Amino acid sequence: MPFLKNTWYAALWLQDLPEDKPFGRVIAGESIVFWRTVDGTVAANEDVCPHRRAKLSVGGVRDGKLTCLYHGLGFGGDGKCAVNPHGPVVDSLNIRSYPVEVQDDMIWVWTGAAELADVALIPQVLAFTRTLPETGFVRGSTYAKASHKLFEDNILDPGHADFLHPYLGSGALSRSKRMIEEGENSLKLNMFQANWRTPAVMVGEFPSPDIMTDQWAEVDWNPNGAMLIRTGATPTGRPESEGIDTWTAHIFTAETETTTHYLYASGQTYKTDDASFNEGMRQGLRYAFEAEDLPMVESQQANLGDRDLMESRPALFAIDTASVRARRLFDRLVAAENAEKVPESA
Amino acid sequence: MPFLKNTWYAALWLQDLPEDKPFGRVIAGESIVFWRTVDGTVAANEDVCPHRRAKLSVGGVRDGKLTCLYHGLGFGGDGKCAVNPHGPVVDSLNIRSYPVEVQDDMIWVWTGAAELADVALIPQVLAFTRTLPETGFVRGSTYAKASHKLFEDNILDPGHADFLHPYLGSGALSRSKRMIEEGENSLKLNMFQANWRTPAVMVGEFPSPDIMTDQWAEVDWNPNGAMLIRTGATPTGRPESEGIDTWTAHIFTAETETTTHYLYASGQTYKTDDASFNEGMRQGLRYAFEAEDLPMVESQQANLGDRDLMESRPALFAIDTASVRARRLFDRLVAAENAEKVPESA
Amino acid sequence: MPFLKNTWYAALWLQDLPEDKPFGRVIAGESIVFWRTVDGTVAANEDVCPHRRAKLSVGGVRDGKLTCLYHGLGFGGDGKCAVNPHGPVVDSLNIRSYPVEVQDDMIWVWTGAAELADVALIPQVLAFTRTLPETGFVRGSTYAKASHKLFEDNILDPGHADFLHPYLGSGALSRSKRMIEEGENSLKLNMFQANWRTPAVMVGEFPSPDIMTDQWAEVDWNPNGAMLIRTGATPTGRPESEGIDTWTAHIFTAETETTTHYLYASGQTYKTDDASFNEGMRQGLRYAFEAEDLPMVESQQANLGDRDLMESRPALFAIDTASVRARRLFDRLVAAENAEKVPESA
Repeated sequence: MPFLKNTWYAALWLQDLPEDKPFGRVIAGESIVFWRTVDGTVAANEDVCPHRRAKLSVGGVRDGKLTCLYHGLGFGGDGKCAVNPHGPVVDSLNIRSYPVEVQDDMIWVWTGAAELADVALIPQVLAFTRTLPETGFVRGSTYAKASHKLFEDNILDPGHADFLHPYLGSGALSRSKRMIEEGENSLKLNMFQANWRTPAVMVGEFPSPDIMTDQWAEVDWNPNGAMLIRTGATPTGRPESEGIDTWTAHIFTAETETTTHYLYASGQTYKTDDASFNEGMRQGLRYAFEAEDLPMVESQQANLGDRDLMESRPALFAIDTASVRARRLFDRLVAAENAEKVPESA
Repeated sequence: MPFLKNTWYAALWLQDLPEDKPFGRVIAGESIVFWRTVDGTVAANEDVCPHRRAKLSVGGVRDGKLTCLYHGLGFGGDGKCAVNPHGPVVDSLNIRSYPVEVQDDMIWVWTGAAELADVALIPQVLAFTRTLPETGFVRGSTYAKASHKLFEDNILDPGHADFLHPYLGSGALSRSKRMIEEGENSLKLNMFQANWRTPAVMVGEFPSPDIMTDQWAEVDWNPNGAMLIRTGATPTGRPESEGIDTWTAHIFTAETETTTHYLYASGQTYKTDDASFNEGMRQGLRYAFEAEDLPMVESQQANLGDRDLMESRPALFAIDTASVRARRLFDRLVAAENAEKVPESA
Repeated sequence: MPFLKNTWYAALWLQDLPEDKPFGRVIAGESIVFWRTVDGTVAANEDVCPHRRAKLSVGGVRDGKLTCLYHGLGFGGDGKCAVNPHGPVVDSLNIRSYPVEVQDDMIWVWTGAAELADVALIPQVLAFTRTLPETGFVRGSTYAKASHKLFEDNILDPGHADFLHPYLGSGALSRSKRMIEEGENSLKLNMFQANWRTPAVMVGEFPSPDIMTDQWAEVDWNPNGAMLIRTGATPTGRPESEGIDTWTAHIFTAETETTTHYLYASGQTYKTDDASFNEGMRQGLRYAFEAEDLPMVESQQANLGDRDLMESRPALFAIDTASVRARRLFDRLVAAENAEKVPESA
């Protein structure tokens, strides 16, 4: 089992779930259908009709039930068959129900044992959006032909911006010291660089283009691929509160071992009411992610084929420390789950 | 061997065979080339040149011979090499010839032992077209990424229209009693519902939209995927002859185990001279088949992967009885052929 | 190992290498990046960064070094790591360097042991372009889903033009005697036909359309897929120098076992200053290669699947003698290399 199961995966933005139709997506190798029940809450179920194995996401919602439009079987969000036009409603017609939670406009789904699905375990990588107006942040998503691990490596090394997104980097983050705190189930990377030239993308927020700043980056990694990076700068020697901050959530939800749903959001502290600045941010992020990160990371997967990066015995540097530790933690968590023989269905 | 070989497969409509060029199609896993001989009859041969294995369907017809345009070898419809510009014409250059018959504008090809190819065995699912004018029926074809078996299930359960094509169904056929007659080599399903509301698609043919009708459906299944469904309605208690009848041939010719050539024709008794009604029928059928049936059935295959539906141990209802029996009959026929070790080439 | 390694492969036309960006291509199963060093010479390296396995062809050239734009590692054309922003420059960061040579505007790369890479071993199939003005010949390239061997068969049998490109053939070459000279590492085929009708494509170069000519074809085959065919005609009994000659280099560089980079050039002796004639030649060649040869040869591969042609035990004629001998020579050369356990990296 290459996937972590007892975890909340970011499935899709709430805005991307049609009002009146189900929506299917493969997550961590499981085919899952998302839909809105009669009271408007989101449900997540196995995307397979127990009768003839059609996808329920090809079906519809009828009278508040997820309905297979092939033969009319209907299911509640709890997975219980509620309608069977062809015979008795029996337990053998029930389908799996996944714990699901909408938080920060993201639909999170738990793919492991339902009794372990504690909402408090949802990573708070989107919390920054709660206090920002809609003009203060952007949301987006894309799809990539590469492992979620390769993308997590990317963000656990913020200094890659100095090379791949030079307008974002100042050279500070590829040289500054890394501090790593490893938790039982997460990892945090802190980087700080005092008195350095200011990245092009931030320099307009300060009075002079030549200003030297103290710069930071904090990365939160979670084993479901949900990550948050806070980056910012303040005039040298001044408190952070006098500088600027940006947050970007990068969420890499595994579809398969070599394909990834990439969901992201990004906000900032300094021009939160400026819709046109925000639109520029949307376009800039899309460019950085889709035109720069994606081709690079997909080229890694193309060279690796089905192998994991670590199997290829790559050369490793200090900048890789955080990603190597995150990979080891991920492997330990998956191994622990498999050792427990977690049941796949609730 | 997952395919039945000693059977006539519907290959393509005669109209779809170019006048002056060969046409290649894979049928039941075999690469077959169809072409017109000098006297206009249709021939079917192995689509592989014995010399360097080029497809003869990439070639042409020259001087009445199927000709490989790579090096000029020519073959008669009997598969005998007739032209070899590079040496003697010898038996080792012969290619396989398939028994082929044009009936009801359909090209039927026999993929088994040639000595068993009795034209009387061609299923008569298109016979209804013989007595109708060209404005009384339509022909069509499409292609699907799903097993022929999943499509046959679909038609052996006419009541699926109540859910998937609600304008075609009245609710009668998903609840009416099924009578199944199983032959040695075929299966017939009869359904009848007395005194029921009339399906939307038929109601305009009766004097009042509220009229109650007796309704029927008869399905003929053959193990080559050739099926015929007759559906109709008559005012309650009146003889069938006072009502209306429609026939639809659904022919599911296996390309591979998970892909299907879908050939169809549909006619009716009541507006046989109305070309615009007929054109509406063509568009309606295309919508029902391509926009409703295909995505649903292909979603079954997507969920099943390479597995057969029955391997997935689906929940089964009374509506599945006919399809389960047809599948068992198919499996017995294939097993019997394999037990006899039928030679693959004539 | 299905590929010959100790050989020069034609990789791409020099004109197709961007001035300021690297270009990646898989050749004989190896991922190789081509780029221009600071002095303008072409370098060829492994297209895999030793750090995290990104493709260097997705990167760039910075300060004269092939540079991974993911994290800034830079390499010289010799494969030596020259820049590492993240630690010491050590030998373990070196990448493979392939011997590379530009000759006749073609970039040739040696995939075997570097110490054996003698430039004198580059096949001289493009030498004819050296003495022709730019209006006297054309260059081109395409890509095909078929083995290089099937394409080499095609050219080693020039008489196929009589069937597949009838405007090029007169019937002479599929009937004339073949003389084959086999070298240790190459094969030459000579064909001659006295006093025969002139091919349509050449006839305009002679005073009368009815003129009978002596015609020849000479084919040079090399085991890297580089081939040259010289064809021509002269009035019957007159010396070659009074006739016309055309040369076409067909270079079939294996990408994988079943896909091929097809690079070609073609020139002639008789209208070398006529740009519009040359443009017609370009269009004619593209038609012959892409509309006639490619579909035919790809249909062979489609019928063969992953099998080699010879495994399918095809019928063989005298016209196949040269290709059968070339295939045997190729197999012997590959077997000899594998017996020597040639190291894969220099």
